[in-house]
Amino acid sequence: MRLRNKPWARDAIAQNPDLVIQQPATWKGNWHRCFGRQAPLYIEVGTGKGQFLTGMAKHHPEINFIGIERYESVLVTAMERAKEAELTNLKFLSEDVYDLLDFFADGEVSRLFINFTDPWPKKRHEKRRLTYKDFLAKYEIVLKEKGDIHFKTDNQGLFEYSLHSFSKYGMILHNVSLDLHNSDFEGNIKTEYEEKFAKKGMRIYRCEAQFRTNEESHNL
Amino acid sequence: MRLRNKPWARDAIAQNPDLVIQQPATWKGNWHRCFGRQAPLYIEVGTGKGQFLTGMAKHHPEINFIGIERYESVLVTAMERAKEAELTNLKFLSEDVYDLLDFFADGEVSRLFINFTDPWPKKRHEKRRLTYKDFLAKYEIVLKEKGDIHFKTDNQGLFEYSLHSFSKYGMILHNVSLDLHNSDFEGNIKTEYEEKFAKKGMRIYRCEAQFRTNEESHNL
Repeated sequence: MRLRNKPWARDAIAQNPDLVIQQPATWKGNWHRCFGRQAPLYIEVGTGKGQFLTGMAKHHPEINFIGIERYESVLVTAMERAKEAELTNLKFLSEDVYDLLDFFADGEVSRLFINFTDPWPKKRHEKRRLTYKDFLAKYEIVLKEKGDIHFKTDNQGLFEYSLHSFSKYGMILHNVSLDLHNSDFEGNIKTEYEEKFAKKGMRIYRCEAQFRTNEESHNL
Repeated sequence: MRLRNKPWARDAIAQNPDLVIQQPATWKGNWHRCFGRQAPLYIEVGTGKGQFLTGMAKHHPEINFIGIERYESVLVTAMERAKEAELTNLKFLSEDVYDLLDFFADGEVSRLFINFTDPWPKKRHEKRRLTYKDFLAKYEIVLKEKGDIHFKTDNQGLFEYSLHSFSKYGMILHNVSLDLHNSDFEGNIKTEYEEKFAKKGMRIYRCEAQFRTNEESHNL
């Protein structure tokens, strides 16, 4: 994503500590307290300008949502959008996904979204892709048993790579769609990117990838 | 595939016992003797009119190939094509893939091809798809350790389903291509279907699926 320098973003974020949680490590294992209620926790890694997660939070008031975005200049838009929507079930972390284990306890998360993440197409940048095995290992820890990843992208190369990475890790692919907008998938919430790319007639790829339980691994 | 009734096909096949092997169960575990040499054995399930396997046999004289096709009216074309090419490393079975274990010993096969197989799109016909788990279980038995399946199709639904089926079975996906003819994949041999569909501008999907070794399963 193209980043514009927004020197005022940091201040704006600091002024909304109810929406963008400062020192998130202090809530590790206790996010239900931060939201003030027990509910399943869904997180999005690389949440960008927040259109997807704001849409999800509107449509699913029964879920607690957290979006993680390391670029303040982008996150500030997500924050403004969420503020306007007056949602109590959506919060953000101005953090790097790399540090995920600092913020969430084992099994605290019920679902994880990865949408239109940077494809890092060069082989030497493989480790930066959010579907690289080292990230999957972190997701597996914070997700509860049978927790899953919902993944969307317009980038064919990233999708091909991710199918390899998920399967190599032993994950099970569900509801694979190689042309989401011409499929019978219901309830899709579009991201900014998705709207833009779909308008150009580009295909959107989607799948769900579930970590294998110990029992399932044992039965292989 | 549209089948034309060819009452003469059975006789034509019977007259070429060197090419279409009669009573293949008698060669189980000893296909290298049938070919008169030790070489890796690659098989194709649902070989159709044989364009793919004839091309492969030409390009890979170091491999023994066997194509399995249950429809005589189709197989007869594959046979004639192979006969014309005067290949000694290609044979056919006029058999049903369902009976695969009758023809090949455990670990006798090095690679298995599935190309443009019938998608059986109705859910109630799932068991007939050649990437259904019961077929995968048979392929796993006849394939040697680290043996793999090379799979191509133009059918989006079948490909989506197969990614699920392979991953659910614990297989590892390699070299996934969601648009084979616009990829950098080299050495592709086209099937009849593939030529026809590609000319219409349709995408060809391809992947390789490898069975997990015992050690790899253990490490999950």
